[in-house]
Amino acid sequence: MTALLATLGGAYYTSADVFAAEQEHIFESMWFCAARSADLSLAGKFKKVQVGRESVLLIRGRDGLLRAFLNVCRHRGAQLCTESDGEVKRTLRCPYHSWTYALDGRLVAAPNLGALTDDAGTPIDRYTYGLVPVALTEWLGYAWVCLADAPPPFDDVVAGAAGTLGDSDAINRYGIGGLDVGRRVVYEVAANWKLIVENFMECYHCSSIHPELVGVLPEFSRGIAAQANTGSGAQFGSGIAGFTVDGTAGFDRLPGITDDQDRRYYAITVKPTVFINLVPDHVIFHRMYPVAADRTVVECDWLYTGAVLSSEEDISASVELFHRVNLQDFAACERTQPAMSSRAYRDGGVLVPAEHHLAEFHHWVVSRLATAV
Amino acid sequence: MTALLATLGGAYYTSADVFAAEQEHIFESMWFCAARSADLSLAGKFKKVQVGRESVLLIRGRDGLLRAFLNVCRHRGAQLCTESDGEVKRTLRCPYHSWTYALDGRLVAAPNLGALTDDAGTPIDRYTYGLVPVALTEWLGYAWVCLADAPPPFDDVVAGAAGTLGDSDAINRYGIGGLDVGRRVVYEVAANWKLIVENFMECYHCSSIHPELVGVLPEFSRGIAAQANTGSGAQFGSGIAGFTVDGTAGFDRLPGITDDQDRRYYAITVKPTVFINLVPDHVIFHRMYPVAADRTVVECDWLYTGAVLSSEEDISASVELFHRVNLQDFAACERTQPAMSSRAYRDGGVLVPAEHHLAEFHHWVVSRLATAV
Amino acid sequence: MTALLATLGGAYYTSADVFAAEQEHIFESMWFCAARSADLSLAGKFKKVQVGRESVLLIRGRDGLLRAFLNVCRHRGAQLCTESDGEVKRTLRCPYHSWTYALDGRLVAAPNLGALTDDAGTPIDRYTYGLVPVALTEWLGYAWVCLADAPPPFDDVVAGAAGTLGDSDAINRYGIGGLDVGRRVVYEVAANWKLIVENFMECYHCSSIHPELVGVLPEFSRGIAAQANTGSGAQFGSGIAGFTVDGTAGFDRLPGITDDQDRRYYAITVKPTVFINLVPDHVIFHRMYPVAADRTVVECDWLYTGAVLSSEEDISASVELFHRVNLQDFAACERTQPAMSSRAYRDGGVLVPAEHHLAEFHHWVVSRLATAV
Repeated sequence: MTALLATLGGAYYTSADVFAAEQEHIFESMWFCAARSADLSLAGKFKKVQVGRESVLLIRGRDGLLRAFLNVCRHRGAQLCTESDGEVKRTLRCPYHSWTYALDGRLVAAPNLGALTDDAGTPIDRYTYGLVPVALTEWLGYAWVCLADAPPPFDDVVAGAAGTLGDSDAINRYGIGGLDVGRRVVYEVAANWKLIVENFMECYHCSSIHPELVGVLPEFSRGIAAQANTGSGAQFGSGIAGFTVDGTAGFDRLPGITDDQDRRYYAITVKPTVFINLVPDHVIFHRMYPVAADRTVVECDWLYTGAVLSSEEDISASVELFHRVNLQDFAACERTQPAMSSRAYRDGGVLVPAEHHLAEFHHWVVSRLATAV
Repeated sequence: MTALLATLGGAYYTSADVFAAEQEHIFESMWFCAARSADLSLAGKFKKVQVGRESVLLIRGRDGLLRAFLNVCRHRGAQLCTESDGEVKRTLRCPYHSWTYALDGRLVAAPNLGALTDDAGTPIDRYTYGLVPVALTEWLGYAWVCLADAPPPFDDVVAGAAGTLGDSDAINRYGIGGLDVGRRVVYEVAANWKLIVENFMECYHCSSIHPELVGVLPEFSRGIAAQANTGSGAQFGSGIAGFTVDGTAGFDRLPGITDDQDRRYYAITVKPTVFINLVPDHVIFHRMYPVAADRTVVECDWLYTGAVLSSEEDISASVELFHRVNLQDFAACERTQPAMSSRAYRDGGVLVPAEHHLAEFHHWVVSRLATAV
Repeated sequence: MTALLATLGGAYYTSADVFAAEQEHIFESMWFCAARSADLSLAGKFKKVQVGRESVLLIRGRDGLLRAFLNVCRHRGAQLCTESDGEVKRTLRCPYHSWTYALDGRLVAAPNLGALTDDAGTPIDRYTYGLVPVALTEWLGYAWVCLADAPPPFDDVVAGAAGTLGDSDAINRYGIGGLDVGRRVVYEVAANWKLIVENFMECYHCSSIHPELVGVLPEFSRGIAAQANTGSGAQFGSGIAGFTVDGTAGFDRLPGITDDQDRRYYAITVKPTVFINLVPDHVIFHRMYPVAADRTVVECDWLYTGAVLSSEEDISASVELFHRVNLQDFAACERTQPAMSSRAYRDGGVLVPAEHHLAEFHHWVVSRLATAV
């Protein structure tokens, strides 16, 4: 016997059945980070987002509240919105038969609506035939939705993030909700979403594929992941002025953070699909959209203060560092995906000591899917 | 409880299993409208048509009869025809091993044919090893084929059409078999065939998506489908001169029709895959070819008298009206298809009173598939 | 009853389940011809080959031995090689976490390799965590690999080939291992691999589709396959100078062959995926790579003596003959594939007397798959 722990078996990464179970018991059962709230700042602004197997419509009401609905007309099922985003005035009108909904989901108009009555002649209920609502909470400036009939406490999400940092208030000091998107890049990755999570959680690969990142965070060359050491973060190298592709200076430190948090990089995995990267002057926020067992879309936001973005300052060197890290990581994941179906990986591969914390992620996946039984 | 009837559940429109059952118990069990007979007017003319899961070869014999066969050589299974249509002289020769069939399906030649004998040395039977015949009947100028071992009475098809008109002779007065194809358009629709049938059967959507059609038939703005009112048809608006995109005059009224039929539009659904639209001066004939649960090819013929087509008269304004209607309808169906897999449509949507006759279609589908058990 | 034997039923050629069973019980259980050894002549040269469902890496060691491994890193499963072929120096390094293997498969380096110990602190075994080896044998200048846990005797392959020729030494006299590849063509065929085998095994189709081949081998016009007459081969026509597209002279006869073998064409099917064509002055060697029930890649090598290839002599007319035969055959197979799903082929087609030996191939397939039960 050796001390090398096994990973999940290959079928977890290739099976359409496992992916279907994940859709149901993970993405459609947990809080899922769906969109940046600021992209939906004005009344009538909407965005169509795929959550598990469902097309979900996020829309800001005239009362200022952001709401989510299944993107399906209650009459004959046409999709209300086919564009990825847009803006309406006061109502959502289904173009097929003109059933029309208020921004709070209520059915407000339809041809011959008066004739739609129950057997006793009572008009149908406007909410019963309104859009199907989806639970929504805003946190860190993002809209998180949950398709479960009984959504779990949102505090689980918050605690999950805080847990990695060891201090429940640490993440709040970055003021993420008040930052603005300086750059957004969408990556199409030909790999299972769990390979992307595993890759993000360990740094044993850093010295092999991330020369720029290791240049800024020299301790990463030893293969120690920030996430394996709760609360400590990774320290900038002595000659490094900022978290940039060439180590040149970044921007003013975010107003709320402590001296302890300065000159450090913290990485947080918020299951199932969010990664948060905290550095003194900005935040990098990844959201995954798992599409199939072997395909995942990753949307990455680089968040800065409004002051930085409205100034003449150039964010390129700052964005470029993690954009390269993303490309390097996703290439590694895509190289791994095909081998998941090999007999050599039937019972999985192995974890070295620096990766042992990945076993917790594997146990968590297995236990989520066990609820399927 | 409300008076709103439910539609079929979403899985009926997305499930590969349901579609396979429909292939077997609907398209391959009923009379299926396969081709316009006039496209196969001369001896040796053939056309390859997909009927359910089968490639069927329609070919005109030298005796003038139109016949249908499975498009498969009896020897080693090569497809006899790979082109969509064409013309042969006296025989169909399989290019793989040169087994050769007369136009009535009989095996007439093969290399070493004399050596092909049974155990007693008797030559093999030319019909036993001939092409596999498929039942064929001509009606309204179209070839209808049936793959069932025991085809149902063709009168069921005729009665189905007559039923909608309320008068068994009404359809005959249009002389559809004697008309010629003035225009044919083939549409690829990314939607289940039943969504297309349902769309054709109701007019609750007309005021929302068919401005030109409602312009010609003002009563359609009230959402009443011609098909829901057996025999009545829909009357042209008072200022409308003809069934054209702009209401300008069409052509001379078809010789056989009655005054009752003049200035009216009648729509007929001949299950499973044919729609017939009757107006005084022409006929619009739709045939569907369901390809997958979410894909249907629709072929639409605009039929006119030979006199109109051989004249200098322009049929554009006449064709354009229903071509726009087709595009509008198919866009609505394509918008509906994706929502069929949503949990919001798991138990279906609802039918308003003006759509209640669609429930009969749903019951019919369910009962056809029940024979699968 | 007739004397016409039935072929396999159509589902054998279309079913994904049958193909999966073939992957397991045929391609991954038998010796599979994977590559020309000479393409891997130097130490460090590698080639990636798909064998059944596995990506297999063939690589020449510094000790001169050719070895095969599953193309999967033992750590976290990344593919070691993603290029189809190439060359490394002394080791294979996984680019994800830098686990590094010697060319004999041993694990020789990894970050923190010293820390990888069993529970008692003993370093992990370098072979246990080395690459997973795949059995490999070289014969006729090709590398044959076997994924079975207990590979069958390689002599079965040799005997299979010799059996067709009737003389166990006949094939050796062509010195195939010492010939060089003069031309290689890769064909993508949209047909089941068994249709390609059946096509190769019979010549009843020759007079229909192979005018050039019949021109060189006139007896093929009678539909008699060389393979049906063990040991006899097919004789060149009297006016034919060589096995070329136009019957012009080829090259000097291969040094080892007998007078009996001169001016004759012999065809050998080595199950499951190899065809060998022997003519006096060269050898045509086909290898199939079945990709799906309806898709097969065929790689065809034309092999000549080094003397011919290093001379100024032109091999075009020689290559062109069988290249045309290949194109003609594969077109026939592609024409046959679609009909395999027709009800007309549910119980298969028929074999004429000149094809009766194909029944043995069918029985062999059925018996291989029976081991699946």
